[in-house]
Amino acid sequence: MPRIVDHEERRAEVAAAVWRIVSRDGLEAATVRRVAAETGMSTSVVSHYFAGKDDLLRLAFRIVVDRGRERASADSADGGRARALLVTALPIDAERRAEARVWFAFLGLAVSRPDLARDQRRAYTAWRRAVAAALRAEGLPQGRDAQTEAAGLIALVDGLTVQATFAPDRMTSARQLALLDERLAELGLGERPDAKND
Amino acid sequence: MPRIVDHEERRAEVAAAVWRIVSRDGLEAATVRRVAAETGMSTSVVSHYFAGKDDLLRLAFRIVVDRGRERASADSADGGRARALLVTALPIDAERRAEARVWFAFLGLAVSRPDLARDQRRAYTAWRRAVAAALRAEGLPQGRDAQTEAAGLIALVDGLTVQATFAPDRMTSARQLALLDERLAELGLGERPDAKND
Repeated sequence: MPRIVDHEERRAEVAAAVWRIVSRDGLEAATVRRVAAETGMSTSVVSHYFAGKDDLLRLAFRIVVDRGRERASADSADGGRARALLVTALPIDAERRAEARVWFAFLGLAVSRPDLARDQRRAYTAWRRAVAAALRAEGLPQGRDAQTEAAGLIALVDGLTVQATFAPDRMTSARQLALLDERLAELGLGERPDAKND
Repeated sequence: MPRIVDHEERRAEVAAAVWRIVSRDGLEAATVRRVAAETGMSTSVVSHYFAGKDDLLRLAFRIVVDRGRERASADSADGGRARALLVTALPIDAERRAEARVWFAFLGLAVSRPDLARDQRRAYTAWRRAVAAALRAEGLPQGRDAQTEAAGLIALVDGLTVQATFAPDRMTSARQLALLDERLAELGLGERPDAKND
């Protein structure tokens, strides 16, 4: 008789193992063999769920994106939704720093893998649209294009993430938030406590 | 009798081969074996010049940094030195796009390799100081900290590079330059033709 296996549960178990390996040792370490060792499954079982390394890496990236989105939804009450959608990606705590490391490892491979590059592009399109919608809702001044400003704000966040990842003593969490808030204030957002209700 | 070998010339030849391989096929392709095939040298000769893959990748990154610096020096006449030091890193032409790809591949490995991370950190310290010095020389308004603004401008450039690399149709060269120039103008720089002489 065939054993009854909960495929979704196994997938989630493999996903959690991929995340632990990648955030600890980098994406290069995320091989089917290592995931098998980490979960106690056989390599053939792991391979049943993931076609290969690229598939594992895409999963790790998806986890980063999902976590960021969930955090942004939970934090929108403090300082407005646009700010929450940006702060969620800044490496200002251990969880976000681990996510940033995974993202850099993913990007490094994505430059030469069309499938990974497409995931990156789609995630950024969704992110930019969400930030742009929040900027409009929160009262971006006339003459400012929400999509363009959203792209600029996301660019700032990504670049701060580079500096914070490689020089955390210099680009502290406080400095990251100050540079983002300075920019939001220049756009007429963020510094006013009641900006959401304007 | 020992053959006379010009070591510097060979190192440069290997460096050029590494660059061609990486910008074409990504950093993963830059193995000692591939470099040997590309140069016609034996793997043991290539290994004599480079201890291994990390060493090859550090070289590729150094080439990116050196090219950027040389271009910035050559372009400082147009629009000021601060702007030149920033525009040099934006992927607005084929050469800079190849450099950006190499940089992302390098960053992806640097998150889990302390030697590579140190190279990244040092290059950014030098870049930030150069931009800050140029901002001071060009008349940054009082109350603005040059190091902080330099870090923010570099962050913007890096984040625009992410979007331009993965969504070049959307984050065009014109849009990259417009977002950078908008930010420079907000700092009181760049839009005025005679800003250098203020």
